[in-house]
Amino acid sequence: MANSPTGESVISRVVRLMSAFDRDLPTMTLSGLARRAGLPLTTAHRLVDDLVLHGLIERLPDGNLRSGMRMWELAARGSRALNLREVALPYMEDVQAAVHQHTTLAVLDHGTVLYVERLSSPDSSLNAAHIAQRMPIHASSSGLVLLAYSAPAVQEEVLSGRLEQVTPETITEPQLIRKHLAEIRQRGFVAIPGIGVTEWTGIAVPVFGPDGAVAATLNAIVPRGEAAVPLTVPALLTAAHGIARALKASAPAPRRL
Amino acid sequence: MANSPTGESVISRVVRLMSAFDRDLPTMTLSGLARRAGLPLTTAHRLVDDLVLHGLIERLPDGNLRSGMRMWELAARGSRALNLREVALPYMEDVQAAVHQHTTLAVLDHGTVLYVERLSSPDSSLNAAHIAQRMPIHASSSGLVLLAYSAPAVQEEVLSGRLEQVTPETITEPQLIRKHLAEIRQRGFVAIPGIGVTEWTGIAVPVFGPDGAVAATLNAIVPRGEAAVPLTVPALLTAAHGIARALKASAPAPRRL
Repeated sequence: MANSPTGESVISRVVRLMSAFDRDLPTMTLSGLARRAGLPLTTAHRLVDDLVLHGLIERLPDGNLRSGMRMWELAARGSRALNLREVALPYMEDVQAAVHQHTTLAVLDHGTVLYVERLSSPDSSLNAAHIAQRMPIHASSSGLVLLAYSAPAVQEEVLSGRLEQVTPETITEPQLIRKHLAEIRQRGFVAIPGIGVTEWTGIAVPVFGPDGAVAATLNAIVPRGEAAVPLTVPALLTAAHGIARALKASAPAPRRL
Repeated sequence: MANSPTGESVISRVVRLMSAFDRDLPTMTLSGLARRAGLPLTTAHRLVDDLVLHGLIERLPDGNLRSGMRMWELAARGSRALNLREVALPYMEDVQAAVHQHTTLAVLDHGTVLYVERLSSPDSSLNAAHIAQRMPIHASSSGLVLLAYSAPAVQEEVLSGRLEQVTPETITEPQLIRKHLAEIRQRGFVAIPGIGVTEWTGIAVPVFGPDGAVAATLNAIVPRGEAAVPLTVPALLTAAHGIARALKASAPAPRRL
């Protein structure tokens, strides 16, 4: 179907084009876009024209390109991320009012942690865990919590894969990670300093969905130093409980075509 | 390029598939999806397989399909909507704390109003203006404000198009709309009851971007009855001013490929 000479589908090439846009580089020229997407200029040109026609890419008055509102709309309308964050937002505000640090909501997706919401603290200098960014599972508190409550098969897949040394303190030894996962399930939270970003401690708790499985993780990122942890955990546990209750209440009645 | 026998491109068919998901129907079977997208089952099957491969659609354990996290991520990363709502969110919270009603942020896109953020009030029974939903420009306070500060050519295009009678009070007479637009520019806000949803009054003010053009509109939806309006307008104007200031501060330094 619609494959290039290399056998790559149109959908695959569109994904490469749309992936080229990010928060640090939201607009670029056609040739810049082609280069970042690794596509020949003529191929990029043809696809971009069609994407502009459908509003998935916007052409600015100066000729530069950026991701289109229609792309955001298409993705947002039926999205699990949107429902999660809509339900979770008031509870995240409660946490931030108590904790005064970045507060994030993340899910497990395609073998990594994906941040679906963040309330930023103006007091925090941390430049990480942005919305729609990803982190390796083993190198973030959010990932470890999500993994701790995942099925054993999921855990083994992650632990048998490549475990990148993100900081000097990232735990990359599968046996040691297993020990942490057991401890997380016993205590109900995680707080290991410096595994994702040196000088910061992510404190994360699970959020359970209506089916009883872990649906997301709620996380506050505090400056390194244990003092903040005992105060932050109860705030997170309280809010996570509230989100789980609200998710249950918001679960749509079964209606399917 | 990759056109079907009808001449429709792969991108166009993918847009039809992704459009089939929405907040009221987030999951469906393959045949339900094909039907809603208006595509032959074999075509839908082939495209969906490729979309699942790239994570743009997810296959649930029961075989049903839903919009994928990767789709949301692709759209969110470089999105103008995401930057706008990140900047605006604290100010929207301020408004909601003062007004206790649905508070929305919307932009003009492809000739309609698109809601990019909403803080919902638990006290409000209104079921409209959801995130990623659209409204006709002339039938919403948000749309009238955005139109009032748009270029004359944009205004004329909207006013010469079809002006649907959404409620008995929707204004569909171009000359009367022009009068309202002039009044909005003079007063700096709009509050016309019942034009989009009977029994509700949208109160909207413009949010200006760093380039001086209208970037969005901030809107509170209050039960019909003039009492709330004088109290709501100053709250919206204050917050819109704060968002404009924050947008200016957050405007990225030019960096382009």
